[in-house]
Parts: sequence; C-alpha cells; structure tokens
Amino acid sequence: MEAGAAPVPQGHIALVGAGPGARDLLTMRAVQRLQQADIIFYDRLVDPEVLELARRDADRVYVGKDVGACAWPQHKIDRLIVAEAAKGRRVVRLKSGDPSIFGRACEELAAAEAAGIEVEIVPGITAASAAAASLKRPLTERGETDTLVITTGTCRPGDASPDRARLAHPGTAVTFYMAVDKAAEVSRDLIAAGAPGACPVDIIAAVSTARERHAATTLDRLAETIRDEGLKSPAILFVRYPKSLAAARAASAAA
Amino acid sequence: MEAGAAPVPQGHIALVGAGPGARDLLTMRAVQRLQQADIIFYDRLVDPEVLELARRDADRVYVGKDVGACAWPQHKIDRLIVAEAAKGRRVVRLKSGDPSIFGRACEELAAAEAAGIEVEIVPGITAASAAAASLKRPLTERGETDTLVITTGTCRPGDASPDRARLAHPGTAVTFYMAVDKAAEVSRDLIAAGAPGACPVDIIAAVSTARERHAATTLDRLAETIRDEGLKSPAILFVRYPKSLAAARAASAAA
Repeated sequence: MEAGAAPVPQGHIALVGAGPGARDLLTMRAVQRLQQADIIFYDRLVDPEVLELARRDADRVYVGKDVGACAWPQHKIDRLIVAEAAKGRRVVRLKSGDPSIFGRACEELAAAEAAGIEVEIVPGITAASAAAASLKRPLTERGETDTLVITTGTCRPGDASPDRARLAHPGTAVTFYMAVDKAAEVSRDLIAAGAPGACPVDIIAAVSTARERHAATTLDRLAETIRDEGLKSPAILFVRYPKSLAAARAASAAA
Repeated sequence: MEAGAAPVPQGHIALVGAGPGARDLLTMRAVQRLQQADIIFYDRLVDPEVLELARRDADRVYVGKDVGACAWPQHKIDRLIVAEAAKGRRVVRLKSGDPSIFGRACEELAAAEAAGIEVEIVPGITAASAAAASLKRPLTERGETDTLVITTGTCRPGDASPDRARLAHPGTAVTFYMAVDKAAEVSRDLIAAGAPGACPVDIIAAVSTARERHAATTLDRLAETIRDEGLKSPAILFVRYPKSLAAARAASAAA
C-alpha cells in the first residue's frame, strides 16, 4: 500500500426482513444490522418505529416502494445500494416481511454479487406467520390442513397470474399476499376448481400494527366482506379447505 | 376479598417461536417473553443457547419432543402448561421455528382456552425463511416461481400423506419439512406427476446452527445425494420447478 493511501473499508449489504410491522417482531439479528448500518434504504410499508432502532447518524433513504407500485424503479435501488457499499459503507436494505418471500431480493443479490460486494439476507417474520399468531389460528392443523401455500394476487404486468386451480384441494391452507383487489377472482377461481364456497377465510389487514383489522368470512362471500368492511391493502387472505369440510361434502353428496 | 387471602396472580401462556436455531434469529418479542417467564417448556430442537435468554431462576422443563417422535405425549404437555398457568405463573412453551407451521399449537391453544387461561402466539422464523437466507436464494423469484408451498414429509400414524401430485407445477417452489427419510417418495411422486427430474433441489440441515450443512442436487438424484452426503434430520428439502425449466422442456418436446 502506498504511503498516505488509507485502506478502503469493506462495504457490506444486508437485505433485512423488517417483519410485518410491529417493531418487536424484528429479530435480534435485524436489530443488530440496523444498529451497524451507515445507510438504510426502506419502503413505505415499514413501520416508522422500526427506523428508530437505527443509529441516529445513519442516513435514511425512502425508496417509496408500495404494494404493486414502485416510486423508484428496482434497477435504481440496485445501483444505489451497490454504489454506497462500494464506498465502504454498511448498507441495510430494509424490506417488509421476509426478504425471501415476494421481496424481490433476487435483483439486489445479483447486483451485489456482480459488483463483488458482500451481501447477506437476514430473514424476517412473514405476514402469514404474524396473521396466524394474531388470530391464534395456526397455518397448519393436524388432521385438517397439512399443506400451506403462500402465493400472490398481484403480478407484474405481462406475467401470468399464478394458477389457482391446483390450490383448491382438501387439506390445503392458502395465504394470498397482495390480493385484496383480486378477491373476486380468487374466489371465482378456487370455487370453479372445486373448493366449497363454505371454506373459511380470514382477512387480516395491517397485521401486527396499531391499525390491524380482521374479518372472518367464507370463500363465496370474500369480495363482499372486503367491500362491506372497507378493508384495504396491505392485507392477507387466509383461505382454508379443511379435510373435514371435504368429508362432510362427500357424505352429503352420497346421501 | 377476605383478610389474608392474597389475590391469585393472572397466569399466562405464550407459545413462542424459537426460530430455526440461531439465538439471534429470535424476535425481540420472543426474548421478552423468555425473560418474563417463570417456567419454560422446551423441545430437543431448540438450541441450548436460546435458553440462556431466560431468567436464571426460571424453571426449565424438557418435554423431549423430536421430529416425528414424542417423549411426552401432547396431552401431557397440554395439561402441564395449563396447570402451571393456573397457579398464576407465566408459562412459555418454546417451539422450534414458527408455532403456526407444523407446531401443534392447536392442541395447546385449545387446552388453554378451555381452562380460561390467557394465551398468545409469538411468531418465529420458520426453517424455510432461514434456509433461503442462508442459501441467498429467495423462496419466490419473479418470473420463475410465484407460489411457495410448505408441506411435510412425515404425518402422524393413520394420516394420509399430503397429496404431492398437485405440487408438480411450473412456477412452484416447495419446501418439505421433516422429509429427509421420505426423499425417495417425494422425488417419485413429483416426477410421476410431471415435474422434470432436472428440477433443482437444495437440502439444508440444521439451518442457522453451527452444524448447518447444505447440498445442491436435482429431483432425480435427491435420495442418492442425501445418502451420499450423510445428511440427517432436521433438514428441509427445497424443490423448485421454475417456469423457465417448463418452457425449455416444452421447446425441446416441440423440436
């Protein structure tokens, strides 16, 4: 090293799951990364209280992503987090929920790796887990539901919607993310594929926050309930097709 | 109140997700509950370091549950947690991962509610999220996988295995819990239902702990890889059927 040339400190990017909203649902590892960060890029869905866990002198950059819409294009976020880390800064990209579930972490991972920047994912509590905890209704139930599906109601323009027919199966619990505006389609597709209209559905909005709201309904009344209750995004739909409902239906068909 | 009769303090049961193993993957809420607990019931899968977060004077009761086997029958655990809370104690039932995902929380919730004991669920990081973070491979990938399935390889005696045929679908990522010993069946069922043998699979054992191990393979070589690498439970299988693989297959069939 030449005299006078200070070593460039090693930059680092952490894609950190902020969980569903409540500050105390962050993991200890997430809190540690926030406290180490020189700069934090965050979305609209992150509860403002979560940012209070960061150092006071850390830069905070709002990148304005919201469900189904981006104030900032993804490639701009990718470029900025890499540019900051390349200066030797510790960068946190804070993401609602778990970065690995509908978090678009792939693009940011690829950008970091292409630039030779060290990157890690810190997992977060996903909305389905938080909703189940809040409802006191597990996502899987012995004898009733042995398979949990996490899927989305909203895709980027040009992408096909996830095929829903195969989800209408006894023993399956399905959580739909970003699907409040697609509730009528979700019901129609599942019922067309054979799910009973009587399947229980919970709608949980703003889970774990002070604005949390919950409505219980059935698959055939899903869109109506959302409308009548005025429920808005962010919310998840938790649809269950219990094995006992399938058995009761079979018994009634045979009678 | 009669003179001399002390009020009975309010007992409480918290079903707390301990996450996949690493102590710093507990949420702050989980840590708080551990620190408040008078007595903690825990399983074999919980890393011993997690228990260090509890008060030194808290009672610790090992209930010896392991994957697919119970040293203690569930009804005995149910009875004991309720009996302790009924004495006015703050009870933590610590569970690996997220209590709402294959955590048998239903039985404990029902027992608490039947006894009129206040009960809550504190969500935890489930193994699939921790595995994705460790692999730096998200569970959903835009354009490739839009649906995540979490299912189990092992059911209680007498229960049918989850139907796997519907999981062999382009765009689906499937994580199998408790399935190391069922790997040959998993491969056979998915391939029989149309999934290409070339589907990528990651096997992640003891995720987030010092003993974590990982092997990458394909669906048609899954059981062989587990055997050759000597991978043991607890582990998850992360099977992906990317849309691009389905498209390549269709193109090759048409050629």
